[in-house]
Amino acid sequence: MIKPGYAPGTHSLMTFHDSVPAFRDGADTPRDYLERCFEKIAAIEDEVMAWEVIDHDGAREAADAATRRYREGRTISPVDGMPVGIKDLIETFDMPTEFGSTLYSGHQPLRDAATVDALRRGGAVIIGKTVTVTFGGGDPARTRNPHDTRRTPGGSSSGTAAAVGAGTVPAALGTHARGSTIRPASFCGAFALKGTYGAINRQGVFSAADSMDHIGVFGGSLSDVWIAARHMARLAGGDPGHPGLFGGSAPPAAIRPMRLIRLETAGWTQTDEATRDAFEAFLAALEATGIEIFGRGDDPAIESCEEVFAGMPELWRSLYRFEFQWPLRQYRERFPDQIPPRLLMGLKEAEGLSQAEYREALNRRVRFRDLHRQLAQRADAFITLSSPGPGPIGTDQGSAVFNEGSSVLGAPAISLPVLAVENVPVGVQILGQFDGDERLLAVARWIAEDHFGL
Amino acid sequence: MIKPGYAPGTHSLMTFHDSVPAFRDGADTPRDYLERCFEKIAAIEDEVMAWEVIDHDGAREAADAATRRYREGRTISPVDGMPVGIKDLIETFDMPTEFGSTLYSGHQPLRDAATVDALRRGGAVIIGKTVTVTFGGGDPARTRNPHDTRRTPGGSSSGTAAAVGAGTVPAALGTHARGSTIRPASFCGAFALKGTYGAINRQGVFSAADSMDHIGVFGGSLSDVWIAARHMARLAGGDPGHPGLFGGSAPPAAIRPMRLIRLETAGWTQTDEATRDAFEAFLAALEATGIEIFGRGDDPAIESCEEVFAGMPELWRSLYRFEFQWPLRQYRERFPDQIPPRLLMGLKEAEGLSQAEYREALNRRVRFRDLHRQLAQRADAFITLSSPGPGPIGTDQGSAVFNEGSSVLGAPAISLPVLAVENVPVGVQILGQFDGDERLLAVARWIAEDHFGL
Repeated sequence: MIKPGYAPGTHSLMTFHDSVPAFRDGADTPRDYLERCFEKIAAIEDEVMAWEVIDHDGAREAADAATRRYREGRTISPVDGMPVGIKDLIETFDMPTEFGSTLYSGHQPLRDAATVDALRRGGAVIIGKTVTVTFGGGDPARTRNPHDTRRTPGGSSSGTAAAVGAGTVPAALGTHARGSTIRPASFCGAFALKGTYGAINRQGVFSAADSMDHIGVFGGSLSDVWIAARHMARLAGGDPGHPGLFGGSAPPAAIRPMRLIRLETAGWTQTDEATRDAFEAFLAALEATGIEIFGRGDDPAIESCEEVFAGMPELWRSLYRFEFQWPLRQYRERFPDQIPPRLLMGLKEAEGLSQAEYREALNRRVRFRDLHRQLAQRADAFITLSSPGPGPIGTDQGSAVFNEGSSVLGAPAISLPVLAVENVPVGVQILGQFDGDERLLAVARWIAEDHFGL
Repeated sequence: MIKPGYAPGTHSLMTFHDSVPAFRDGADTPRDYLERCFEKIAAIEDEVMAWEVIDHDGAREAADAATRRYREGRTISPVDGMPVGIKDLIETFDMPTEFGSTLYSGHQPLRDAATVDALRRGGAVIIGKTVTVTFGGGDPARTRNPHDTRRTPGGSSSGTAAAVGAGTVPAALGTHARGSTIRPASFCGAFALKGTYGAINRQGVFSAADSMDHIGVFGGSLSDVWIAARHMARLAGGDPGHPGLFGGSAPPAAIRPMRLIRLETAGWTQTDEATRDAFEAFLAALEATGIEIFGRGDDPAIESCEEVFAGMPELWRSLYRFEFQWPLRQYRERFPDQIPPRLLMGLKEAEGLSQAEYREALNRRVRFRDLHRQLAQRADAFITLSSPGPGPIGTDQGSAVFNEGSSVLGAPAISLPVLAVENVPVGVQILGQFDGDERLLAVARWIAEDHFGL
């Protein structure tokens, strides 16, 4: 546990983008920055267990190269020298990629995932691989929540969220097909972006539910999230066939929202009272600045959207049930002893959906997306919780009920570490329009930075 | 060489669907059928070199199981007992998958690709892996054209096309991101379907140009092509997020087309005279049956479409240049000695396209697809050549100029082995509407079977 009594603002995340001036004028160097990461990691790793492997030598070599580039005034990208952790569902050519599974013990790909390759080409410092839940499923990871080690960090980007939320690295990559980015970011107190579906290239990443899976970008600040995300899209594009994340290389300036739509989603009834109170107080403070916040009682279109969001868990499940089958059903068949219990349970649920039923689920998704798109035009963003409470005590990953919506819709979502409940973090989630990631991040900056003071 | 003097109709492809009654009444068995495949393969394999590996024992075991099911009247799918070859870009859990590359020598996946898994679950007999060009690129495969071993079988589904075209197996899987299905089918005299983009699940398949890549299904008859394609889509779906191949389990009955649109495409000016003459004669014979055939001179909309098709090679290249980079650029960087020369050349061309240029290429594709969709409604199908002539003598894979259109558009295409030029096969290609695969196959049946008598 890093220190007791978490409250937003009392805890420091590690940020990178704002260190760049110091790298440029020589007051700091990427190598020194990296060593601070290593020190912070070393101080808590025994307890938090966020990392599968750390490549000290490789990272130092990359940081030294970046240090030289800053010194010589010939840096190559906004992520030059940025230490980044990589979720172990994402391939790396120089470190094993085990997908959290004993089936792939020691598995060494010959290539980096497209994202990792883009980071390296931009001079980023790949620190190591962060712990993931087996095949991104529902079983517990060994990682613990850095703010209270009795609690789950969430999953499946468990190590990624813990490493960033603990303030040991400024950025790390996760994935998200249900709640695997927004949920652990909420529990661990990190900023995170799950961009528009297809906005960041997923080639070389294990996907259990391919039409809902995304790269998640975790950071110590929204600027760090943006520079990493935008850099990867610029070099590697989005998923093939997709236009890729839109926007500039530099983080967008904060935009004060005029109007937010407050969504309850299927998650509100599962939210504990302390978290509800914290969220209501947060909304009240936003409203007090003059921002209009509309909810289901204010507009029949929002009411319709809430009905849609109420159906998300079921729609998510239908899509997942069909897509989840490959390759996991085969692994169960051939290596039953190596598939952990909740994944087995998920597989059992995944069986028996026909192609015709899957098609109907896809059709329903088109209708849901249309409705979301229409409503999204009426406000600057949607606002809701990132999770129905803090990370539960024990090994349960916690509920993804607030996260299935953006997974199904493919709309961008950002988690902001602005609430504390039971002395641990809970995130506020804002959701935007398809391909409106940059504008959403600008609004998020206003809320988290200009308004809330993070 | 199987026998000199190829002419359609004089050469027998191996068919499966029409053997099923004999399996049912006991006059034949899947095991005997398989042994005939093995005999035919053995007779030509030294010369043709279509196979990376053949799993005699595993195939015999699967064929025996199918034999028992037919005997006991409890078959499990239309492909029960069907011997199928698998292109070596497609993963198999029980045979190495080397992607035609020394980089992956002995590489053994833990899983079948979704298609192979679906075939096995339907009782199909996986015979072995067919030779592919390294990473599906432009270098020669060692496989030779079974109708004239001085000639290329085409690529990159070289072994697949040769095995089916030689009449040694009734079905085999290939892939297609430029011309890799329709071109080798043309050169080797096989039937083949490159379905609508996304219609058959590609999970577990190496893709060099992901937004244009398809599974290709090769068969000894259109019925065999259909039962394999439809079975795979029913069990494994299409690519995640796509509805998957539409249609019934049984091959659709032939439909006589009323109207065909004849396309010249960018390929016509590259077509040799003998092939032009053969194609014109084929069209004349079709017209003589009362089918209307319209071309660019008959309708300004067709003229517009021809202009679009003339721009296909360039659009294909733009999309490919961006998508091709991962993971091949990395392999070149780290293992330069193991990347063959034409792949290196392709990689060199692939560099330097920006995300913005790629987006513009995607936008152009949307416009091309709209135009194609509008025109497709005016006729039963488009008709053109599958290649600008027979497979060239030497190791050059031959031109894909007639194939880039359907790769970019994602519209279904079928190659029919109905022409002979220089005593070797050339295919006629018919193209359909998005998701209109079943109807296209029905029209193809009328042309190839009812009209041409194959």
